[in-house]
Amino acid sequence: MKINTTQHLSHLKYKYLGIHTQNENVVYMHKDCHVCSSEGFEALTRIRVFYKSQSIVASLNVINSSILSIDEIGLSDEAAKKLNVLENDTLRVRHLEPIESLSHLRAKIYNQKLNYDAYSNIISSISMGDYSNVHLSAFITACAGDRMDIHEIADLTKAMIASGKQLKWKQEIIVDKHCIGGLPGNRTTPIVVAIVAAHGLTMPKTSSRAITSPAGTADTMEVITNVNLSSAEIQQVVLQEGGCFVWGGTAQLSPADDVLIKIEKALDLDSEGQLIASVLSKKAAAGSTHVVIDIPLGPTAKVRNIEMAEKLKNYMETVGHAVGLKVKVVITDGNQPVGEGIGPALEAFDILSVLENKTSAPHDLKNRALFLAGELLELSGEVESGKGTEIAKQLLESGKAMEKFTAICKAQGKFVQPELALYKHEIKAEKSGTLKAIDNRRLAKLAKLSGAPQSPSAGILLKAHLGDQIQEEELLLTVYAESNGELNYALNYYQSQKDMFSIG
Amino acid sequence: MKINTTQHLSHLKYKYLGIHTQNENVVYMHKDCHVCSSEGFEALTRIRVFYKSQSIVASLNVINSSILSIDEIGLSDEAAKKLNVLENDTLRVRHLEPIESLSHLRAKIYNQKLNYDAYSNIISSISMGDYSNVHLSAFITACAGDRMDIHEIADLTKAMIASGKQLKWKQEIIVDKHCIGGLPGNRTTPIVVAIVAAHGLTMPKTSSRAITSPAGTADTMEVITNVNLSSAEIQQVVLQEGGCFVWGGTAQLSPADDVLIKIEKALDLDSEGQLIASVLSKKAAAGSTHVVIDIPLGPTAKVRNIEMAEKLKNYMETVGHAVGLKVKVVITDGNQPVGEGIGPALEAFDILSVLENKTSAPHDLKNRALFLAGELLELSGEVESGKGTEIAKQLLESGKAMEKFTAICKAQGKFVQPELALYKHEIKAEKSGTLKAIDNRRLAKLAKLSGAPQSPSAGILLKAHLGDQIQEEELLLTVYAESNGELNYALNYYQSQKDMFSIG
Repeated sequence: MKINTTQHLSHLKYKYLGIHTQNENVVYMHKDCHVCSSEGFEALTRIRVFYKSQSIVASLNVINSSILSIDEIGLSDEAAKKLNVLENDTLRVRHLEPIESLSHLRAKIYNQKLNYDAYSNIISSISMGDYSNVHLSAFITACAGDRMDIHEIADLTKAMIASGKQLKWKQEIIVDKHCIGGLPGNRTTPIVVAIVAAHGLTMPKTSSRAITSPAGTADTMEVITNVNLSSAEIQQVVLQEGGCFVWGGTAQLSPADDVLIKIEKALDLDSEGQLIASVLSKKAAAGSTHVVIDIPLGPTAKVRNIEMAEKLKNYMETVGHAVGLKVKVVITDGNQPVGEGIGPALEAFDILSVLENKTSAPHDLKNRALFLAGELLELSGEVESGKGTEIAKQLLESGKAMEKFTAICKAQGKFVQPELALYKHEIKAEKSGTLKAIDNRRLAKLAKLSGAPQSPSAGILLKAHLGDQIQEEELLLTVYAESNGELNYALNYYQSQKDMFSIG
Repeated sequence: MKINTTQHLSHLKYKYLGIHTQNENVVYMHKDCHVCSSEGFEALTRIRVFYKSQSIVASLNVINSSILSIDEIGLSDEAAKKLNVLENDTLRVRHLEPIESLSHLRAKIYNQKLNYDAYSNIISSISMGDYSNVHLSAFITACAGDRMDIHEIADLTKAMIASGKQLKWKQEIIVDKHCIGGLPGNRTTPIVVAIVAAHGLTMPKTSSRAITSPAGTADTMEVITNVNLSSAEIQQVVLQEGGCFVWGGTAQLSPADDVLIKIEKALDLDSEGQLIASVLSKKAAAGSTHVVIDIPLGPTAKVRNIEMAEKLKNYMETVGHAVGLKVKVVITDGNQPVGEGIGPALEAFDILSVLENKTSAPHDLKNRALFLAGELLELSGEVESGKGTEIAKQLLESGKAMEKFTAICKAQGKFVQPELALYKHEIKAEKSGTLKAIDNRRLAKLAKLSGAPQSPSAGILLKAHLGDQIQEEELLLTVYAESNGELNYALNYYQSQKDMFSIG
């Protein structure tokens, strides 16, 4: 039996359509084009698109109008950028070969345990962009809700580390910290980096953007400085200043994580296994050796009971050990937001006021940053146990931390002041009494509806804290937005959720 | 505190772009349009689009080129069709209000049991098109792998029935049958409908298109007659002939099912709970009272062990009872394909040769159809227990079944003969011996790669059966395709999977 095994390739001329799609790569072809008919392509198909020596997988949208002629092909802006293709260049398309890792995905959906090789295949398909949003969502869901055991989480973490670049440092000790989030405004990281770098430790901090919150550290720092640095640029900044505050995505550390995070965001989901793998893979890939992880615990924080916090602590430390990291987990008070600002620019104001030792600076944010910096100084072995916080305080109050912060920002390319959004609305108390509870999740949602983090100066400035004696008509918070539509949208939500503050 | 609660609506002029997308509704707006900037819309956003009194939810793609001007708006063809909008009509857009049922979806992802109200909310969001592919995929995955108990499956089934139209019949007994699939070529349904309708029973058969197989009954019957009938048209055909063979989708029976099936197809997944809810909701919504369900059991069929088959049998019968159906489940031999054809047109040839009592007609297909028709005749109470198969045989061999089949097809609008595809390749045995096993799943995949069911005349004509003495160079099968690209693609797959036939 002889079969022609040459893979049939078809050629089409690229036309710029300027369509910015969602996550997925999209390829556009005319319904009457010879490729669609001779190759049997139709909408719903995923195909491989080649340009020179590169290729991507894209979903086909079929064009029934004259925006493309029959010998032309279009790409979504994202896909065109990946291929680096120019108008009138020739592209080739081909049926998509079966994606082997999908059999592992199906096994996971059916509750089977996967080993390192299986996770490695899946993560490598994801890194290459071979999964559609449907596949990505299925993978996230199949791994959520306690469906991965600790060995699987460790294997997933290792697979994620191996899938991207890995930074190497000449220093023996590289420190890092991470907060698992859930507490609006809890933006200690930039302060901690400034303090420990001022002490002489190396802290090449890479952060995520927000997953389900109104701001991630990368979103916040982007208001003040450049956070999209290449790994060469990160190396240079850290060599010079001992620290950095950058987004992990452009550095190509654990690239599958950035793809998965977009889908988790769409699902408003942040599952345990993915959370651990996401955090620890970024840390290990960034070359860290000693990591403090902060788990805020409270009734409306991400972690709501001590059993869950202890389980996460155990998992983080065990998986950390498996991937060669010394991890210390601290469980902190997660009953209310930290600082006053919620949203990138508003949180940046808080950070600067703490670093500048202003008397108006939020005490809670300052104290948490000092505690975490102290833990890191102690974990590194550089500072005697029990002395960490005191030394951190000296570094902050002497102005050395601010000096280091400014120097790092300048090394990253700029140091600019944050700005407030144009549209705002003050929300006042409707009665007097003691503030007994704040619903963190609904407050975060209010900030998100106002536009944060996509609109960096949107968000909330919170003036009330647990235990405060509130008077009727006293200011509780101000909502900031960059457009009137978003402001109204957030305020409509607040109207239906007034019990996010319990005053009694 | 007073807040402006009027929902802001923005107006844009509709321009036809002719983009046929995947499942999701897509809306296109220029990046500089006043709505994008004043409302804070950006790519990744899901928004609500209004036209007259109707609205849909769509994902935003932002246009950076001149294919849209700043006061124009485009829609994917699917979305434009739903809104029935014409060029230059005015559309309004608004931020998407939070979708409440997503909290139930998240609860299910975290392994919580959901009640009827929760499933009902989710199914109604899905029917309205409010879920993105990411949400749909998460729902399917969260319900797969034994994550629904029998009460949940019953509640999901009821929710799916209630979400669409429900057909009513004046006859007391309405029979139906369904095969859960997994066995290529097993296309007994049209023969069974013809036999029981010839007997005088009422069998308003609605079928799915293929989920993960090379052909569904609707795909196969579409080669011979019209299967896209409105519910009024279905009523008319059944009133006249006592039976029909239609696609369930256009009849608006359990509409969420059709949305979910597309995503299951993309995942190549057909999970237990969704399977039961899908089958029984369609049956109940179609007004059936007595249903025979065929579960083929075999090492490479969909159901591979007797425990799984018994469990499905129990679930089907229990959930059937809960929704008011008398269900009989029969477990049949699922060791090899049935008939010779695999793919819509090729299976249609087999059906016609059985109905026409040709001596060349596949015996296995004929015998299964007679057995199932007999079971239905007995379940209905119209025929004495033990006599069903014999009476079915008389109806078939007398030509009454073929007469009824032709009459139903004509009532559905046409009766045409199937045609063979233009491109074909014969695959011959490489050695002599006994045919010991056929891998159904890989054979089905081969047929799918050849283009079935999208290309209706593509597929496989299988000439070898288990136990056959095969000679070297003897014909095993012929692969048919509608394009050379698809033929090569299928043959490349076969080259790498030669052990789908075990000859020894």
